[in-house]
This record gives sequence, C-alpha cells and structure tokens, in this order.
Amino acid sequence: MIKAGILGGGQLGRMLLQAAANYPVETFVLENDTECPSAHLCHYFTKGNINSFDDVYNFGKQLDVLTIEIENVNYEALIKLEQEGVKIYPKPSALKIIKNKIAQKQFYKTIEVPTSDFVTTNNRDELTLHKDFLPAVHKIAEGGYDGKGVEILKTELDFEHAFDSAAVLEKMVEIKKELSVIIAINEKGQTAIYNTVDMVVDKQLNLLSYQLSPANIPEKVLWKAEAVALKVVKELNSPGIFAVELFADVNDNIFVNETAPRVHNSGHHSIEACYSSQFDMLWRVMLNYPLGNTEHILPAAIVNLVGEAENMGNAHYEGLEDVLAMDNVFVHIYGKKLTKPGRKMGHITILSKEPQELLHKVNQIKNILKVTAK
Amino acid sequence: MIKAGILGGGQLGRMLLQAAANYPVETFVLENDTECPSAHLCHYFTKGNINSFDDVYNFGKQLDVLTIEIENVNYEALIKLEQEGVKIYPKPSALKIIKNKIAQKQFYKTIEVPTSDFVTTNNRDELTLHKDFLPAVHKIAEGGYDGKGVEILKTELDFEHAFDSAAVLEKMVEIKKELSVIIAINEKGQTAIYNTVDMVVDKQLNLLSYQLSPANIPEKVLWKAEAVALKVVKELNSPGIFAVELFADVNDNIFVNETAPRVHNSGHHSIEACYSSQFDMLWRVMLNYPLGNTEHILPAAIVNLVGEAENMGNAHYEGLEDVLAMDNVFVHIYGKKLTKPGRKMGHITILSKEPQELLHKVNQIKNILKVTAK
Repeated sequence: MIKAGILGGGQLGRMLLQAAANYPVETFVLENDTECPSAHLCHYFTKGNINSFDDVYNFGKQLDVLTIEIENVNYEALIKLEQEGVKIYPKPSALKIIKNKIAQKQFYKTIEVPTSDFVTTNNRDELTLHKDFLPAVHKIAEGGYDGKGVEILKTELDFEHAFDSAAVLEKMVEIKKELSVIIAINEKGQTAIYNTVDMVVDKQLNLLSYQLSPANIPEKVLWKAEAVALKVVKELNSPGIFAVELFADVNDNIFVNETAPRVHNSGHHSIEACYSSQFDMLWRVMLNYPLGNTEHILPAAIVNLVGEAENMGNAHYEGLEDVLAMDNVFVHIYGKKLTKPGRKMGHITILSKEPQELLHKVNQIKNILKVTAK
Repeated sequence: MIKAGILGGGQLGRMLLQAAANYPVETFVLENDTECPSAHLCHYFTKGNINSFDDVYNFGKQLDVLTIEIENVNYEALIKLEQEGVKIYPKPSALKIIKNKIAQKQFYKTIEVPTSDFVTTNNRDELTLHKDFLPAVHKIAEGGYDGKGVEILKTELDFEHAFDSAAVLEKMVEIKKELSVIIAINEKGQTAIYNTVDMVVDKQLNLLSYQLSPANIPEKVLWKAEAVALKVVKELNSPGIFAVELFADVNDNIFVNETAPRVHNSGHHSIEACYSSQFDMLWRVMLNYPLGNTEHILPAAIVNLVGEAENMGNAHYEGLEDVLAMDNVFVHIYGKKLTKPGRKMGHITILSKEPQELLHKVNQIKNILKVTAK
C-alpha cells in the first residue's frame, strides 16, 4: 500500500482522512498537538513540529507521497525529501512561491494575471513611503494564516499600529464579489475545475458570511475567473489541488487575491455537493488515479461554524439538535476540544435546487447554531 | 464528549467511523485483529475477543453507548452492561431474538408477519423427519454469517452432507425478488424508513449480483414490504438501525427472510445516494440527535467487490483505475490486506437518474474490477 503523509493535523487533515478510508492507502500525520482533529483518524500519528527540519524530514523519509494542510511548514526538509524521491503535493517549488506573500504577488505579475497594485516593504517604517497607496491591505510576507497577518490601513494614522515585518501593501480594490476557484491538476498536467464559489462577505463585520456554489454571477465573469485561476495553477507547475481566491470589482474585472496550494475551506461543500470532493480529488492525484468528476449533484451553501466572541473553553454546540432536524443539511464538527473566539470549529453544508431555500437555511443556521464554552 | 464503542472492526465499523468524524463523539473499537479495517480510524482501539464476556464487559464499562458490527458477540456481557447503564444499540433483548435463527423465526410467527414455513431441528439426524419440507433452506441456529451456515437441501441425498447443529429448516419459496428495507428507530420510537432495496441475485451463481435502490417494484408490493419491515422493527422494541430482508414471491406475497440489527450491506449506497446515510443515521440514534432524512438525492446501485475465486494473498485491485475514470461512481475499498475467495473487499456505488445507466455501469464494473492476490 502507498504510504501517504499529511503535515498538519487540523480539520483539513481530518476530512482528507475520512476520504482516504475509501482507498488502499496507509496514512501518516505529523502534528504537535496529540489531540488535534486528525490524530485518531490516521494509521500512524507522529508528534512533531511541522516547522522543524528534522521533524519533517524524519517523518517524510518513510513515505511515498506527502501533502500539507497549511503552507507554513519546513520548506528545506521538503526540498531534501523531494530530491530523495518522495512525491510532494504541491511541489516545494510551488509552495515556495505561495508561502511568501511577496513572492506570490510577484509571481502573479510575472505570469501576467490581473492582481491588485502593490508595493513591498521590509518593515513598518517603509510604509510611510507609500501614502499614495492608501487605503490599502497590509499582508505579512510569511506566516499569516486564517486572517492573521492581514490588516487594513485606511489613513496614515494607521501606520503606527501596523505590524513591523516584511510585507505586501496592496491597493484596495472596490470589491463586488469574492470568488474561489478550486482546481486539481495531476502528474500529466490534466486539470479538473470545480464550479466557482461565491464567498459572500458580511460587509458590516468584514467577515465571511457564507459560501455559495455554483456562484450566481454572469457567465463572462465566470469564464474570466476560471481562465485566470487556470493560468495561475498551470504556471505553478505542480500536481496537487489549488484554491485560487479572486475578486470581481464593480466593473466585473477579475483580480487574483491569493492561492492556497491545498484543500480549502471554500471547497468543503464538495463533500456532499460534488461527485468527487476536493478531498477525494487530492487522493486521486496523490495515488495517481484518474481525476474525479467535479460536477455538482445539487447546488450548495456552506456556513462556517466559528467560536463565539468572548467564549473560551470546552466547546459546546448550542442549537446543534435544531440544525440536525433540518432536511438536506450536513453537519461537520471538527472535534476540537477547546473553542476560542473566531476559531473554526465546524461547518454546515446545505444542498438544494432552490437558491431561496439555500439562503433561507443559511440564515436559520446562523441564528440557531453557536459554539460557546461550557 | 460521548464515548461510543463498536464491537467488531470490519468494514461496517470503518464506515461508521468515517461518519463519526462529523460529530462530537469519542470512538472505541473492540476487535481481535489489530490490522482490521477499523483499527486506525477510532480514538481508542482495544485488541480483544467480541465473544469473551470479560473482553466485552471491560471494553463496554468505560462507555456511554455501544453498538455492534456483527450479531455474534457476547450477549451476557451486554446484559450486564445494560444493567449498569450503558446504552446498547440494539438492546440485548432484540439481539437475543435475532442472533439465534430459531428464536428469530419463532418471533416472526409470534408477531404474525409472513415468513416461510419452517421447522426446527436439533441435529442432522432430525432432518430425516422432515422430508416433506424439501426442497428447503437449512440455516444454522447460531453463528452463521455472510452465507456461512446456510445451505440448500434439495433431496434426501443432501441430508448426509448437511451440517449437524441446531437449525431452522425453511420451505423454499419461489422467489421473484429479494428486497431489503432499512429502518432507523430512536429512543422515542420515531422511525425513518429508507427506500426499499432490490437485491438482484444472479440465478446461475445463486449469488448477489448487485443492488438497486429505490427498488423498481409495483407500489402495492413496496407498501407491503415497508409495512412488514416496520412491524418487525417496532416489535423488536429497541432503538437502533435494522435491515429487514424480505422475499417477494411470484404472486407478490411478501415473506420476511431475516433481520440484521445493525448497518447492513444493502444500505451502503446511502452514503452517497441519501441525505442521511445509514451510518450517519445510527450516530444520530446513538447520540440522541433527530433522525436524518432518508430521501434519495439520486437513484443508486451497489456492486460488491469480493475476492476472486482461487485467489488468496495480498489484495490487488485489478481495473480500479478504469472504474475510477467512470463518472458518478464511488469506490469504497475496505483496506483489508488479504483477499480470499468471496471475501468482501469493497463496494462501488453508482448514482444516476437513468436506470439504464445504472445497469450499464453495474455490468461494466463487474467486468472490469477484480480483486486478485498479487
């Protein structure tokens, strides 16, 4: 049996492992937290630091294939493992481009896909050289994750509280839609494109509210989004699965925001909504099987379940029974013991032919279901 | 978190554990084979004998809820665990009726559901008293499983090779259809009925060929099948999930064949074809959540993947890539290292609105995919 490893043991690993149990594959997880969501679902769990060269190298050298759950892993170990014949999804060369936001932006420029204007800065002081860029998005070059390491700078007054690291400063785009296109690409360079996802943002809270797929956008915007995402993925020149996040502005121009070289939150609906889920698809790529069918069985919405503000402690899922009583609703709780404000604790997928039913249930679920501390 | 145990670690446990990862539950498995399909997918694996009082009792006493993967488990330990407050699905009282084929047949008679005529025998010699029953099906009272402990006796000449145990001798029914109705029932006695499954038998090989759901049978037969199955499940008087296997004869009469008090092979399509799979449903029952939606998203067929004749050794899945290249086809390999003739090694689910497409793909898959020994 092929031996396959995952660096990181969070919910993405968990859902990968649920899908892995359909195939003849032996699974390995490296993660520091022995109670992480993936720890009990693999054949072999190794406690270790995904940022440590030794830990990643020693973990990886026993494996045939290796993937990541998070970009922030020891890159040098991956290079050495690749040289020694371990197949890595994504290739370290692609990961290198993506894990540094400066390199990522420069890559988009080099391959000539549209992306918002930007400058790069080495530290906080250099921000003052770019007043003309305001309002702007300030993104830390390395180590940002899940909204951490990203801040909005509106006026010069914001500079003094800005983080002090190498960073990208991006001109704000007037966003009409945030979209995500997930694409799988195999060793032969064949691709499978999932339907575009509309990541609907709550403009008041500036937070993701829910996700809809297929996105309800004009066909020409859809084509542009798919074409741009496909260009990005092909130019990264690595088998694997990629989520390309895009903006559509008020004039229906498309800009690449950023790319994740792995399974992604915006693709979770694919477990129930698509013939081959993003998790199934990554196994197909890694085990060198034919790509799966990305078609939708039914349209879907995803509601993320995050820890309530001011709640920290043992997770309690208020309203879970009421949500489980709703038809055509699929609950995924990630099995994290502790909840924290904003922590991703689960997600809910809703399937329906009727867009109105999707929206109605999204709103119901958002009202009913809360992760609090007991 | 609720602590839930499974007695037995085969593919049913494996699929239960895949579904468990959607819920906040801690999972435990008891099984002698440390390399069984479920061993690596639970939080806590205990090596032990499901027929041993001590092993089952010691395993169970740490748990809140307990279920079974196979009927042949230590019943006395379950009784004691139930007395001490462990919730058991199915209740030992229901399991007791089902695990002994004589008790099961007598139960059907007592509750007045139609079942084929039968007599009970204590040993081989007693068979000769029932020549008038031939041709008959001879079923061992205890410990039969997956076709073992069942034989057809056509003439008196077959008596001398028949097994020599307490048994049921059933008059053969001229079967037109073999059906299965899966029903979940919760603590409150509420029920959820899955669409009837047509278990299509290859008459030449006398083996299950494939399964279709919803079954394509006249509505009045369907209603009879559902009514009889529901009666059986309600009279068993236990929460859990049950598969009631039925025959329809040439006159569209319905007979109960036997009942499994657990998830069942005939319900595997529900993973992809139904909003709530049989595995999801059992967790809902055990965790005391509302029952799920048994409706079909799309019609489905299942092809079982069994070890080829004359092949014994490390399993190899010939043709797997070709099957994975087919659209709307879902592969489930159970992760068993060794194949044996007739051993259940996996199953394939096909979804399609078109009955012709289902049948066409069933035949393709049966031709393409073989489990051989390498």
